[in-house]
Amino acid sequence: MEYKVQVIVKPLDAIANPEGKAVERALAALSFDRVTKVRAGKVINFTLEADHPEKARSITEEICQKLLVNPVMEYSEIQISQSGN
Amino acid sequence: MEYKVQVIVKPLDAIANPEGKAVERALAALSFDRVTKVRAGKVINFTLEADHPEKARSITEEICQKLLVNPVMEYSEIQISQSGN
Repeated sequence: MEYKVQVIVKPLDAIANPEGKAVERALAALSFDRVTKVRAGKVINFTLEADHPEKARSITEEICQKLLVNPVMEYSEIQISQSGN
Repeated sequence: MEYKVQVIVKPLDAIANPEGKAVERALAALSFDRVTKVRAGKVINFTLEADHPEKARSITEEICQKLLVNPVMEYSEIQISQSGN
């Protein structure tokens, strides 16, 4: 079975986020002054072949652990849906 | 009213995505060989002060247009929820 996976990787609250700060300053310069707490992270989408949804999730968690997420600075949110085809 | 906004910015399907390709190669090297179509993008979270949800959405769309998204290469997905406080 084919699954569509989306992993969102965000900086932990306690960690400084210079990219978010840069966006916040740029928005203020563009007069968007009601925007606060800007944080930037990354999103990774992929297709995964697995026998069942639980297996797709456990593989994705392993992928996060081994490659995508640095747990000292980041956390991840995983969304998995069955692929249309 | 305070709103929590999440903007996911993804590369258009027709556009090459070297970061996604690099992740795909790294995963193959780690023996995750059932992963395909890896695409990487960015996520921006922020808090927005607006009078009502429609206004929050229209401000966010303007922010995407003016700063966050390059429509030649990217598209965005916007999620808005009312803040707890």
